[in-house]
Amino acid sequence: MERYDIAVIGTGPAGVSAAITSKVRNKSVILFGSKDLSAKLAKAHTILNYPGFPEAPGAEIGAAFSRHLDAMGIEITEDKINAVYSMGDYFALQGGENAMYEAKAVIIASGVVAGKPLPGEEELLGRGVSYCATCDAALYRGKSAAVCGFSPKEEHEASFLAEIADKVYYIPVYRKDEPAPVFSEENIEVLNVKPLGIEKREGRKVALRTDAGELVTDGVFILRDSVAPGQLVPGLEVEGAHIKVARDMSTNIAGCFACGDITGTPYQYVKAAGEGNVAALSAVSYIDKSK
Amino acid sequence: MERYDIAVIGTGPAGVSAAITSKVRNKSVILFGSKDLSAKLAKAHTILNYPGFPEAPGAEIGAAFSRHLDAMGIEITEDKINAVYSMGDYFALQGGENAMYEAKAVIIASGVVAGKPLPGEEELLGRGVSYCATCDAALYRGKSAAVCGFSPKEEHEASFLAEIADKVYYIPVYRKDEPAPVFSEENIEVLNVKPLGIEKREGRKVALRTDAGELVTDGVFILRDSVAPGQLVPGLEVEGAHIKVARDMSTNIAGCFACGDITGTPYQYVKAAGEGNVAALSAVSYIDKSK
Repeated sequence: MERYDIAVIGTGPAGVSAAITSKVRNKSVILFGSKDLSAKLAKAHTILNYPGFPEAPGAEIGAAFSRHLDAMGIEITEDKINAVYSMGDYFALQGGENAMYEAKAVIIASGVVAGKPLPGEEELLGRGVSYCATCDAALYRGKSAAVCGFSPKEEHEASFLAEIADKVYYIPVYRKDEPAPVFSEENIEVLNVKPLGIEKREGRKVALRTDAGELVTDGVFILRDSVAPGQLVPGLEVEGAHIKVARDMSTNIAGCFACGDITGTPYQYVKAAGEGNVAALSAVSYIDKSK
Repeated sequence: MERYDIAVIGTGPAGVSAAITSKVRNKSVILFGSKDLSAKLAKAHTILNYPGFPEAPGAEIGAAFSRHLDAMGIEITEDKINAVYSMGDYFALQGGENAMYEAKAVIIASGVVAGKPLPGEEELLGRGVSYCATCDAALYRGKSAAVCGFSPKEEHEASFLAEIADKVYYIPVYRKDEPAPVFSEENIEVLNVKPLGIEKREGRKVALRTDAGELVTDGVFILRDSVAPGQLVPGLEVEGAHIKVARDMSTNIAGCFACGDITGTPYQYVKAAGEGNVAALSAVSYIDKSK
């Protein structure tokens, strides 16, 4: 398996900036994210304060970022990283469908997780609640599960789960402009309800409370766009929804850096880009010292 | 006197970004610097890692910054700020020729001071060594002074000093591409020597050591492009040549923020721009809380 120098997770301004500076410093880089870069950036009507782009639609800055990545030969790997494990002198990154990647240093630029966890979600994590169908599907052979998908991308995860589980309830927690889910699998049932919380039930069952009553299954999958930082990297020091970083963007785990919205407010494009640059230079320095 | 909400000192990427975000947040801003923005930026051959500008000459990014300032109606005040005094609920800024400005919050983005202080310079500051001819000229009536000017802009200061002092020795410490100084004043003598250090002499005299021997006068003026941060703002906590800042770009003085190269390495354009954005938002928050 190719071991990259630096893995960058996220293609918003922080991740793009981190990847560019890593490449400028002659490091091999794998950049995880979306070819559309960032939904938040793409949908921004007008950005006033990214210096050099007066009154620019977000899409204009996004297009400039894409041209910049192209000009430097940086490709985007469209895989969602579900977990990052520190292995001592390198990191193992778990992608979808059990894809694994390796890098000497990791830069987390995955943005803020929108919305708060559901009541009971964090308490029952690993005891009926899971964030990764790919990782935990095997536990549901012959069982039932509820999947709360926060974007249409998660329908693929539900289909994968339905290959193993007896019954999958799929609850789309989508924006209004996103298409309703359609499944060909007979054992997937779409429920247009609003999840309100999760509670423990007897016999290792869990109950998903919704605005239309309670759904009791063997497990509940919560599939958001971003994985909560403490969940993404076991042992990572967090402050609420944010990763705790020093001025050089280092975290409490050697070789793991963070930048952009995930490190805290203000949520601003150029702040994120600036932090991406610093995180990359710190990662380069970490790698060069580790030689 | 108009009291601005925010005074920004410096027109590199940090200062430009700080001014833009301050204006976006509806604060009145005075931006001190050069209409050429930043010599370092303008002369940069190619900048590879300012996201959105692939392989851009520094002048191209500088021109985009200028267009951005113009589009927002932000003017540049071409005055050098020699001192910033915290007056409790506002700051007094001392410019050239005794010009004074007032602002509720100050953002220092004046870059790093190139070069180390001369041996003896810091020890004798205020006791024969001065950083500001405009401020201290009156002390030299009927006396002699040496002026080490680090750019042609300082010739104006020497001329001002020569109106009061009996004799001014002007030592140009210029880059090779800068024109040699020409003065019409008969009491200014240009010495093409290299300053090496400053020492105390009897009778309140000081000696400027040079590669061509010693020059004894009543005082030595050291006029660099930037004023050392601890000198610029009395009481400011520094770490070597850098201002000590928290993650929100606050300094140890309430209402005084810093950003860009002056806060420390890495010296990078987008890092500076990101910090300018954060400093501005912190200044806005400080002003709004102080109401």
